[in-house]
Amino acid sequence: MTLLVVGSVALDSVETPFGQVREVLGGSATYSAASASLFTQVNLVAVVGKDFPREHLDFLCQRSVDLQGLQVVEGETFRWSGRYDYELNTTHTLETRLNVFADFHPALPESYKKSDLVFLANIHPELQLEVLRQVYPRPRLVMADTMDFWIRGHRDALERVLGTVDVATMNESEVRMWAGTSNLLQAARRLLSLGPKVVIIKQGEHGAVMFNKDTYFLVPAYLVDSVVDPTGAGDSFAGAFLGYLDQVGQIDERSLRRAVVYGCAVASFTVQGFSLEGLRHLTPQAVADRYLEFYHFTHFHEISG
Amino acid sequence: MTLLVVGSVALDSVETPFGQVREVLGGSATYSAASASLFTQVNLVAVVGKDFPREHLDFLCQRSVDLQGLQVVEGETFRWSGRYDYELNTTHTLETRLNVFADFHPALPESYKKSDLVFLANIHPELQLEVLRQVYPRPRLVMADTMDFWIRGHRDALERVLGTVDVATMNESEVRMWAGTSNLLQAARRLLSLGPKVVIIKQGEHGAVMFNKDTYFLVPAYLVDSVVDPTGAGDSFAGAFLGYLDQVGQIDERSLRRAVVYGCAVASFTVQGFSLEGLRHLTPQAVADRYLEFYHFTHFHEISG
Repeated sequence: MTLLVVGSVALDSVETPFGQVREVLGGSATYSAASASLFTQVNLVAVVGKDFPREHLDFLCQRSVDLQGLQVVEGETFRWSGRYDYELNTTHTLETRLNVFADFHPALPESYKKSDLVFLANIHPELQLEVLRQVYPRPRLVMADTMDFWIRGHRDALERVLGTVDVATMNESEVRMWAGTSNLLQAARRLLSLGPKVVIIKQGEHGAVMFNKDTYFLVPAYLVDSVVDPTGAGDSFAGAFLGYLDQVGQIDERSLRRAVVYGCAVASFTVQGFSLEGLRHLTPQAVADRYLEFYHFTHFHEISG
Repeated sequence: MTLLVVGSVALDSVETPFGQVREVLGGSATYSAASASLFTQVNLVAVVGKDFPREHLDFLCQRSVDLQGLQVVEGETFRWSGRYDYELNTTHTLETRLNVFADFHPALPESYKKSDLVFLANIHPELQLEVLRQVYPRPRLVMADTMDFWIRGHRDALERVLGTVDVATMNESEVRMWAGTSNLLQAARRLLSLGPKVVIIKQGEHGAVMFNKDTYFLVPAYLVDSVVDPTGAGDSFAGAFLGYLDQVGQIDERSLRRAVVYGCAVASFTVQGFSLEGLRHLTPQAVADRYLEFYHFTHFHEISG
C-alpha cells in the first residue's frame, strides 16, 4: 500500500531537565515519516526553506522517505522552541516562527494522489482539508492529529476535518478541552459522534486509548529508564501506527490494536533522545523486540479462577 | 487463609465537581476491608469513637468483616475532609481531626496474631511497626501503604516499615517525592532496594504498575462513565489485591498479576459513588465481569507478524 504524510518539517530548540538543543531536526511530519519508515515506504509533503540542512534530507532519504512532495522555497524553515519541566507532561511553547510555513499550501505530486493511507499531522485544519481535496480515490484510511491552538482558534475548520477522517487523534488534555469534560469516555464518544470510526487519545507517559463505537483498547506506556525529550512522541506514535497498518495491508480490530502497540513502542524510543536521535539508529528488529516486551509487561490471564 | 487489615475508620466530608457529602463512612481500613471482603473473610483492627453510627458497623459485619479488633472508645471518631477539582487526580485535604485516632495503638486480638496476609493501610508508620511486632509467625505477605504526610515528616520510620514488608505501595506522586526522581522505573528500583519484593505504584485514573526485581506489570485503569469521588480508590485496590490472593491461596507472578487487575476492577467501582456507595451492593460476579472486561479492553496478540 502507500502512505502519505503531510505536516511540518522544522528546526526545533528544546529545553528539558536533561539538557537543551538548538535548531535540531523536528516537525510533526518528520517524526511521523521517520517512524512510519520503520515499516513501509512513506511519501512526505511539507515545506522547508533554503536554509534547511542537507544532512536532514539525506537522513530522511536513507529511511525510504520519498521527498518529491517536499517543497524547498526561498526563506527560512519553520522554527519551534519549547520547554518541558520536571514531569515532562506539559509542553511550554516558547516561540513559534512560521517562516516559510506561513504561506505553505500542500501540493500533492501526481503519484501521491492515489494513497491508501494518509496522515494529516498537526497543521492548520484548513491545510488538512486542502490535502483531502487532492487525494483521489478516497484513501482506505485517513488519520488526523491536531493541537490545542487549533481547538481554541479554528474549531469549525477542525471539526470539518474530524468529520471527514477515519481516525482522529488528540492528547488527553486536548480532547478534554475540545469536549469540555474531564471524562475520557464521554470525550471520546463526542469525538466519535462527529464521524471518525476510530478515536485515539494519547496519554503521554501513561500510554494511549483507542476507541470505536463498540469498544476500546487501553495500552499503558512502556517505562523508559530516562525520558530525555518528549517532543515528537505523538507523531512517532501516529507514524508507527500507520506504517504498521500499511505494512500488513489489513485494517481490522486485531491489526489496529497491534498498530497502537507499535505506536507506543516506537514513541518509547523517540523520547529517549533529543530530536530524532532515538529513531536514527532504530531497527525494525528492535521495534519488534519492544513490542514483545509490551506483551510481557501487560499480559495477564483471562480466566480468573 | 486469613487476612488482617489495620488502618483508619473515619467519617469523611468530601467535595467533588459532582457534589458533596458530609460525615459519611470512610477511612483506609474501611475501604480496604470492604473491598477484600468481596473475596474473603477479613479481620479489622482500627478505632472509632462512641459517636460512630451503628449502621456502618452493621454494613461491615454483613460483609464478613470481623470487628473483634475494632476498638470503640470514649470520644469522637476520626474526621477527614477533602476536595477534588476538575481532573480529580489531586486530593486537597481541607481538615484532619484525629480525635480518638490521636491515642490509637493497634492491639491485635489473640486470634488475629497468626495472619497469613496483612495490610498496613495508611496510618503512622510507627503504628504500622507496632502491628508487625504483634503478628507471629511471620505472615506469608505483608503489604504497606503510606502517604505524602509520612514521607515528609516521618521518613525514617516509614523506611523501617518499607524495609520489612513484602509489598510496598504508593501513589505515583508519592513515590516520585520519596525517591526524588520523576522517573518511575528509577523510583521503583530505589524502593525495591529497601527490601520489599514487590512495589506497586498506583496511578489513579491511569491504572497501576507492579514491579519486582526482574520485571514489571502495567495495568491501565478501567474507564468509567463518571468518576464521582476518587476517595478510597487506592485502599480498594489494596483490599481487593490482598482479598484475591487470600482467596486463591497462592502467591506467584501469575496470581499477583491477576490480583492487580482485581484491584483495579474493584477500585473502578469505588470511584463511581461517594463514600462506599460504589461498593455497597457490589457482588463478586460483577467484579468477575469487570475483570473480564479488563481483559478484553487490554488484550492484543503476542505474535506481531
